[in-house]
Amino acid sequence: MIQKKNEHWFSMLFIWRGSVLPQLLPRLSLLFLISVGIVVLKGTLFNFKIPLSPAPFTLFGIALALFLGFRNSASYDRFWEARKLWGALLNDTRSLARQAITFSGYHRDGKEVDTFLKYLIAFTYALKHQLRGTDAAEDLRKRLDPVLAEKLSTAIYKPIMLMKEMGIWVQQAKENGKIDTILQTAFDENLNKLSDIVGGCERIASTPIPYTYHILLHRTVYIYCFLLPFGFVDSLSWLTPFIVIFIAYTFVALEAIADEIEEPFGLEPNDLALNAMSEMIETTLLEMGGKPIPDYGKNKLGILD
Amino acid sequence: MIQKKNEHWFSMLFIWRGSVLPQLLPRLSLLFLISVGIVVLKGTLFNFKIPLSPAPFTLFGIALALFLGFRNSASYDRFWEARKLWGALLNDTRSLARQAITFSGYHRDGKEVDTFLKYLIAFTYALKHQLRGTDAAEDLRKRLDPVLAEKLSTAIYKPIMLMKEMGIWVQQAKENGKIDTILQTAFDENLNKLSDIVGGCERIASTPIPYTYHILLHRTVYIYCFLLPFGFVDSLSWLTPFIVIFIAYTFVALEAIADEIEEPFGLEPNDLALNAMSEMIETTLLEMGGKPIPDYGKNKLGILD
Amino acid sequence: MIQKKNEHWFSMLFIWRGSVLPQLLPRLSLLFLISVGIVVLKGTLFNFKIPLSPAPFTLFGIALALFLGFRNSASYDRFWEARKLWGALLNDTRSLARQAITFSGYHRDGKEVDTFLKYLIAFTYALKHQLRGTDAAEDLRKRLDPVLAEKLSTAIYKPIMLMKEMGIWVQQAKENGKIDTILQTAFDENLNKLSDIVGGCERIASTPIPYTYHILLHRTVYIYCFLLPFGFVDSLSWLTPFIVIFIAYTFVALEAIADEIEEPFGLEPNDLALNAMSEMIETTLLEMGGKPIPDYGKNKLGILD
Amino acid sequence: MIQKKNEHWFSMLFIWRGSVLPQLLPRLSLLFLISVGIVVLKGTLFNFKIPLSPAPFTLFGIALALFLGFRNSASYDRFWEARKLWGALLNDTRSLARQAITFSGYHRDGKEVDTFLKYLIAFTYALKHQLRGTDAAEDLRKRLDPVLAEKLSTAIYKPIMLMKEMGIWVQQAKENGKIDTILQTAFDENLNKLSDIVGGCERIASTPIPYTYHILLHRTVYIYCFLLPFGFVDSLSWLTPFIVIFIAYTFVALEAIADEIEEPFGLEPNDLALNAMSEMIETTLLEMGGKPIPDYGKNKLGILD
Amino acid sequence: MIQKKNEHWFSMLFIWRGSVLPQLLPRLSLLFLISVGIVVLKGTLFNFKIPLSPAPFTLFGIALALFLGFRNSASYDRFWEARKLWGALLNDTRSLARQAITFSGYHRDGKEVDTFLKYLIAFTYALKHQLRGTDAAEDLRKRLDPVLAEKLSTAIYKPIMLMKEMGIWVQQAKENGKIDTILQTAFDENLNKLSDIVGGCERIASTPIPYTYHILLHRTVYIYCFLLPFGFVDSLSWLTPFIVIFIAYTFVALEAIADEIEEPFGLEPNDLALNAMSEMIETTLLEMGGKPIPDYGKNKLGILD
Repeated sequence: MIQKKNEHWFSMLFIWRGSVLPQLLPRLSLLFLISVGIVVLKGTLFNFKIPLSPAPFTLFGIALALFLGFRNSASYDRFWEARKLWGALLNDTRSLARQAITFSGYHRDGKEVDTFLKYLIAFTYALKHQLRGTDAAEDLRKRLDPVLAEKLSTAIYKPIMLMKEMGIWVQQAKENGKIDTILQTAFDENLNKLSDIVGGCERIASTPIPYTYHILLHRTVYIYCFLLPFGFVDSLSWLTPFIVIFIAYTFVALEAIADEIEEPFGLEPNDLALNAMSEMIETTLLEMGGKPIPDYGKNKLGILD
Repeated sequence: MIQKKNEHWFSMLFIWRGSVLPQLLPRLSLLFLISVGIVVLKGTLFNFKIPLSPAPFTLFGIALALFLGFRNSASYDRFWEARKLWGALLNDTRSLARQAITFSGYHRDGKEVDTFLKYLIAFTYALKHQLRGTDAAEDLRKRLDPVLAEKLSTAIYKPIMLMKEMGIWVQQAKENGKIDTILQTAFDENLNKLSDIVGGCERIASTPIPYTYHILLHRTVYIYCFLLPFGFVDSLSWLTPFIVIFIAYTFVALEAIADEIEEPFGLEPNDLALNAMSEMIETTLLEMGGKPIPDYGKNKLGILD
Repeated sequence: MIQKKNEHWFSMLFIWRGSVLPQLLPRLSLLFLISVGIVVLKGTLFNFKIPLSPAPFTLFGIALALFLGFRNSASYDRFWEARKLWGALLNDTRSLARQAITFSGYHRDGKEVDTFLKYLIAFTYALKHQLRGTDAAEDLRKRLDPVLAEKLSTAIYKPIMLMKEMGIWVQQAKENGKIDTILQTAFDENLNKLSDIVGGCERIASTPIPYTYHILLHRTVYIYCFLLPFGFVDSLSWLTPFIVIFIAYTFVALEAIADEIEEPFGLEPNDLALNAMSEMIETTLLEMGGKPIPDYGKNKLGILD
Repeated sequence: MIQKKNEHWFSMLFIWRGSVLPQLLPRLSLLFLISVGIVVLKGTLFNFKIPLSPAPFTLFGIALALFLGFRNSASYDRFWEARKLWGALLNDTRSLARQAITFSGYHRDGKEVDTFLKYLIAFTYALKHQLRGTDAAEDLRKRLDPVLAEKLSTAIYKPIMLMKEMGIWVQQAKENGKIDTILQTAFDENLNKLSDIVGGCERIASTPIPYTYHILLHRTVYIYCFLLPFGFVDSLSWLTPFIVIFIAYTFVALEAIADEIEEPFGLEPNDLALNAMSEMIETTLLEMGGKPIPDYGKNKLGILD
Repeated sequence: MIQKKNEHWFSMLFIWRGSVLPQLLPRLSLLFLISVGIVVLKGTLFNFKIPLSPAPFTLFGIALALFLGFRNSASYDRFWEARKLWGALLNDTRSLARQAITFSGYHRDGKEVDTFLKYLIAFTYALKHQLRGTDAAEDLRKRLDPVLAEKLSTAIYKPIMLMKEMGIWVQQAKENGKIDTILQTAFDENLNKLSDIVGGCERIASTPIPYTYHILLHRTVYIYCFLLPFGFVDSLSWLTPFIVIFIAYTFVALEAIADEIEEPFGLEPNDLALNAMSEMIETTLLEMGGKPIPDYGKNKLGILD
């Protein structure tokens, strides 16, 4: 994710990086050229005047803006829900760490606690890799006991299998007389929440906005923009290409952003900073456990990726 | 559900499968023919000029877009809530499975745990069949003890009766000294959530958006579209049929999509992938229980149906 | 509530039952007649030309559509929240029934359980009657012990008094050694939820959308519609009455629907099917308790009323 | 709060009470007079024609309607959230009352229960007075033991201090062997919810919608309305004042309503009926405790204030 | 945060403080001058007539208003969620304080309770400083034991480390026989909530609305406003600069407000009153503990900063 800088209002008009403009440039250039052609031909095609006026464009442009607004809100809601889930992951792993550290006598002899913290950290990385479809092996090997890392390597749902290990850890703490069943259920409630987080992320990753919406809106936005020059050539004359590009840029860019943030677990510039967030969770859990913290060179609120 | 592919922006304009265009083709063709007729007759009917101008269409088109936007959001919210409920089903069955496996000594002798996992899996399939109004018998027979499968065959609310069995299983685990009442309530809380999920799905399946909205919007959308050619024939001349079809396509298609996703448990192309999601729940529960996993040939996030 | 049928798109244009058209017919007829009069007089009043053009109507029509959209969403949210509360009632009574059946040894000797199920069913009917302002006496007499039914007959908040009885039932089960305090709190949490459901329904029933909104929007919608023919008579000529009725129908009907679903506990055609839902809750609870189920002749998802 | 009556659609157009019209009359009259002046001068000022056309008004009027829609939704959400909090207060005090009555042996000897019910009722009135900035002394004196009433009179956060007393009551019940720690936590969870309700109300009362929004929208609405006659005088001629007042009424009234319901704990006609709701809570708690109920002469759902 | 005063509707039009007008003055003045230039040149540039008409501005202005509305809602939601989190912080610290005071025998001998209250108060200040990126050292030194204050000075996540101390405090209370494990979990649940609050605030502080939205909307708003005079110079003549400034003010101001409240933890005039809210939490916790209250000279609902 690209971070906001406090730009001057004027210089912000010319920002390039972080804008979707670069990726849209080819199609906007094409539209510009077509508009120029239409201006030159004065809105005729094969000596045939195209009888388009601004009226239907006004009507339809506003309707289109409304539908695009819906698509945009739905995409943003997915992005923000995904962020909330990763925020909840931070909160919940911290709560589980606090329980492991303070309940029972473990906060005096940290060995068992260390194992639990490792599970939590490995869980976070495993979830990140599952959502991105990347290979978790290396991150798990670095953080887990080799036997467990090996066992997990063939698991389909690695984070869930790690949660099972956490459940067994809690059960053994009870059998060792460190906690009683009451504290076990306190752990268990936070494990339930962890399960909700995993499933919530899987839901967003696996169920996009119905594809028909994509097609319908994509189609209407582009046909609309490519018809625009015909509608305005009579009234705007040589200014047509500039105004058309200005209007088309907004519509097309909004559709492109909505498309990007709709899948918030990807690797595009506006997707969530899963790397930075995983490292932040690792940092805060290690700090709670009084362990040395790796230097990830990131700011502590975990914005940049 | 049809999955999103990363199409080129240009080729996406010509996609056929996954679009609602095929089903709308007959009515749009009818509208096209009528428009052509109106162009030929220059907007007269029985030598009588129809005095329609674009002004009322602009006013009303935008109002219609607003109302359609409301209908669309309400439908999408139902679709997404249904998806969330099935996501919660995944989370909750996993949590119950973790509890059954790790609490008590059962994770050393898995026989009792197997029974519980079978209940959870059968529950999922029973819910799917109830929501779709299909016959659960075969799916239950394959996964349950024959006596129970037989007993369930006459039950009206099969998932609820299975939950009662789970409750009895938990009670017996307590009576056998495997868990205490504290762990019993931990199970019980997740069973409460399961009850909420069943009821939530039943609510969406049984209570559509008030039917009056359907009629009102359907009626207005179609009358509007069929009046459009009269309004634009004077200014757009021979282009009328094309522009009318373009505008009508968007309005009519949006109404059609909203209609489809409003009932997310159906079998239409944009409905939820209940089969794939049931198989995914089965897979993850069996993996947690260390059982062999049937090969459903689906990707592990459960998108396609 | 009227159920959706899968109508053909064309025949749906002529549906009568389930539409608000019948109730609006007198006022729309009046508007039609006035419009005809205006056409005949060519927009003059006492030989005085009314100088109205479409411009202010476009501006104001869209603003009105926006405000109407707000009113509509707020009404629909009330309708849907009310439905959710009755859905939660179903879930929660099922959970309480499961607890009464499986906890303790009662599922072997169902007499005490029967009493509790009766409380739950009577509670549901008592809530329905309180919300509709109808007399609960007969429904309670049929389902409860005569002494209790008599005692409740003078209670102001009958569902709450029934919940108190449930609380005493749970306390006695503890005193009889059937459950311990831990299971008592598991019951108690579901009773808390039941309390939230009652209060939520009372809130919707007792606090309408601020009345000023009603007056303001009602007034603007009707004045707007009755001014419409003056604005369009010059451009639309003899078509004015038809177009005016078409536009007015949509605005007025939307206001009428919003008005109807805003009070979802009433008896109008688009209100919630409280009868069917009460019977569904009764059916599922009796099935869980293994009791004979009365034949209500309804489908099992409880749609029709 | 003013209650909705089932008015005829036609007579509703002339309702006076409950409408914001009276309070807006002076400013609308001023606008009317100015419009008349503009008509007389035919849109000139010091013999100087003001060159305003309807075009910028259409553009800006719709934008303004959108922004006003946002302000309105935000205000309504605050109103409805405040209502939900008071609904939750009803639910939660009933739940606490049920716990105090049924847990332990207190429901056989009600003296201790009476004290607790008094705390709950006094708490409700204390909250009402804190939110309205009025003096709670009399209401507390009537309902509490004199020593406690005296002690509370100097407290800054009276409801919170009463909750502390409830917590001590629960602790003493445990020390007297009436309840065990498990039931104590059941009470405690409902006290947590009570704390959330107090804080939620304080949040709404203390944090208005950012003031800049008020100024910006207020300013734009009024400048817009006072410019309107210039824009329409050429096309609407002598009708200008009437149409301008009609449009201005809707915009200005919507802003006025939003302003009123934004602070739902006030004493304006559309604010929440805190008096009636406090009395309703008192009634239902006293009925649960089997105490005589004061006759507040209100309907039992607590609408009127 | 600036507080709302009950201004007269007329004088509110001329308010300066609390409005974003001052900060926008330079750019609006620039736009005014440009508009005057365009009027003088009658819309020509180098003797070249710019052929812009109001039509594309109407179309695009409404689309822009829609997109701005989305941006605005998203920003306001962040502001309000941040406020809710600080409201929850108030509720939760009060609940924890109530538990510390009433559970166990501590409410008779307050020394241990004092330590816990200090933790809660220091936690609040530590969170405020972390969110604002300011130095917490002084506030912690004033409120905590020097050893702990020293230890925290190097911590990255100070509030989390303080929560760990609270967890240890609770564990020691159990080991000292003051509370049992059941009450320990009651504390623990509120500590979980505290963890959710910290993480929620960190989420809002670290993840802005995707930056691409900023650029896109900022760019479109400003280009639109600077093109406006060309579009209206023909129809509005010498009035152009005034109308353009009026329209531009609303669009630009709305974007500026959205930008400001989007980061609610900052120090700009419309940001949250974190100072006042921290002092309010301190006040209420000290009052609960029966301690002397510092005079912060603020009203008790914590509005002003």
